[in-house]
Amino acid sequence: MTWYLENAQTIHSEVEAQAQQYQLTLTKPPGALGQLEDVAIRLAGCQGQLHPELANIYISVFAGDHGVANQGVSAFPQAVTAEMIKNFAAGGAAISVLAKQMHAQFEVVNLGTVFEVPEHEAIVNAHIAKGTHDFTQQAAMSTEQLEQALTAGQAAAIRAKQAGSQLFIGGEMGIANTTSASAIGAAFLSKPAAELVGPGTGLAADKLGMKAQVIENAIALHKAKTPMEILQCLGGFEIAALAGAYISCAQLGMPVLVDGFISTSAALMAVAINSSIKPWLFYSHESQEPGHQALLKALDAKPLLNIGMRLGEGSGAAVVVSLMQSAVALHNQMATFAQAGVSEA
Amino acid sequence: MTWYLENAQTIHSEVEAQAQQYQLTLTKPPGALGQLEDVAIRLAGCQGQLHPELANIYISVFAGDHGVANQGVSAFPQAVTAEMIKNFAAGGAAISVLAKQMHAQFEVVNLGTVFEVPEHEAIVNAHIAKGTHDFTQQAAMSTEQLEQALTAGQAAAIRAKQAGSQLFIGGEMGIANTTSASAIGAAFLSKPAAELVGPGTGLAADKLGMKAQVIENAIALHKAKTPMEILQCLGGFEIAALAGAYISCAQLGMPVLVDGFISTSAALMAVAINSSIKPWLFYSHESQEPGHQALLKALDAKPLLNIGMRLGEGSGAAVVVSLMQSAVALHNQMATFAQAGVSEA
Repeated sequence: MTWYLENAQTIHSEVEAQAQQYQLTLTKPPGALGQLEDVAIRLAGCQGQLHPELANIYISVFAGDHGVANQGVSAFPQAVTAEMIKNFAAGGAAISVLAKQMHAQFEVVNLGTVFEVPEHEAIVNAHIAKGTHDFTQQAAMSTEQLEQALTAGQAAAIRAKQAGSQLFIGGEMGIANTTSASAIGAAFLSKPAAELVGPGTGLAADKLGMKAQVIENAIALHKAKTPMEILQCLGGFEIAALAGAYISCAQLGMPVLVDGFISTSAALMAVAINSSIKPWLFYSHESQEPGHQALLKALDAKPLLNIGMRLGEGSGAAVVVSLMQSAVALHNQMATFAQAGVSEA
Repeated sequence: MTWYLENAQTIHSEVEAQAQQYQLTLTKPPGALGQLEDVAIRLAGCQGQLHPELANIYISVFAGDHGVANQGVSAFPQAVTAEMIKNFAAGGAAISVLAKQMHAQFEVVNLGTVFEVPEHEAIVNAHIAKGTHDFTQQAAMSTEQLEQALTAGQAAAIRAKQAGSQLFIGGEMGIANTTSASAIGAAFLSKPAAELVGPGTGLAADKLGMKAQVIENAIALHKAKTPMEILQCLGGFEIAALAGAYISCAQLGMPVLVDGFISTSAALMAVAINSSIKPWLFYSHESQEPGHQALLKALDAKPLLNIGMRLGEGSGAAVVVSLMQSAVALHNQMATFAQAGVSEA
């Protein structure tokens, strides 16, 4: 059996139930911390300890180019993928700033760009090809390339686990990857592309119809059905790597914080490939990209934040880490009614 | 002229405009950080510097008892106000944990409880009376007591300013204070109390009608019109102190992060008393307490978080500080397109 079909670790449901009971003893009305209570309880179940920890965060940003960029579906030129990889490594991108702020371990995994990227200690070279093929013409990648991308994601998850990380964030960068993510969503959920496409980095409103048509044509061309076929025909290297990372994290017993639209399309494929990973995924925010809501709904996901972010890179997830850390601090450090001598209802 | 009618400091609108322009130069699609961009831009305008700072946070939790608790409007006994003051000071309450997490300066201002509170270095004694009067029988407080409460809030703001704080959070504690906040909202916005009341700390659903009727009776009894009359007749010491603190912060040029339902009722009164303070108020979260939405709408407030919190104490605001700090870090530390050599759209 290939590695990505193997079962995720089992959630410690008895510890999760204990954590739920413990929340009721803390000096606050039951439920008054809202979703923060759920976060702490779920993390307790993931980690198998009543008092979970969330100090060591690992951020891998997966980057790769997309052949479909040739169709004019992005507001930015393709050179930006490689340029942004350099910016990630140099510390100037949003995700770099946020990683530094939370003292996270941070790496960029370069899966293949059209333009050259110099060597850098923060860049992992996992080159597959100079971007995917244009999926309006042929499958985005070969079956071998899909395996390579999934395995590059697995390798990142293993590095995170070996580093003692308590939470994994996968980011992404790849000009035209909202087109790929929309195509994945439309193919898998059998929805019209027009319901899922959005401006991405800022495509003009009068080009959204063209973007949807590009996707409809590709879906009609490939007739991909299974999640593996959909990833191969319509995916991107970085999206497949994210899916591989998510699956591997769950197999290693490491919770994942999913970012925005692109990352959620990877989560949708990862869960479709291997449904056992589902309880290991936490969802950070709802992006302003219009297709995100449909993907979140399909995953039954309730993200914590909705403030109109639409940057990708893992930035929405990175911003939400502090909310999860507050949830953990409250769960672990608040006094109980008995300890504080506070009367109950 | 009484101090609370004096104008707030002027926002540095030219710096705010510069910050807005500066955001467009950072390596991301314009607007891709959503409301985080607005936070950084507004803080730049408040502080009069293109690169704002948000390291020093001041948290004052105002506490006081409510005579209307006698009407059975709360799920918890009145002793809890004093017990929780001790819990705040001892570090066991949610707001204490969050204050410690962000290295905030933290104090509890005791405006008067029915049960005794011991002395403690973290508790500021600003005793007015052993709680307000039951406002179903008479005005909650005298005009002198209202002045005392407003001034106790001002004193906290001055302490925060003297400590070099860059953001002020006011919290509150007082059994029955959702009844007072709902009464303030209903009286000021001329809405039926039934539209604003909620369970607070957990009042049984079959008692909500009674809670609304208590409020309607009080509104009919006092016929309070101006915000000062409403605060005096229907308010609480801690709500008036919050209003005083908010006004004083704006006069001192210190931004405020408003917490949940109770705090927003104080903000509504503060803005009604002195509209010049409005640009100094940031809103943190939308509480699960049903009346909060109406108060936020009246203030044209767009809070950052909506995760079903309903604890008060300043806890929702405290959780949101890290989001604002991320906004500031991104604004200050991201590379520009020119610096990073990234192509533009």
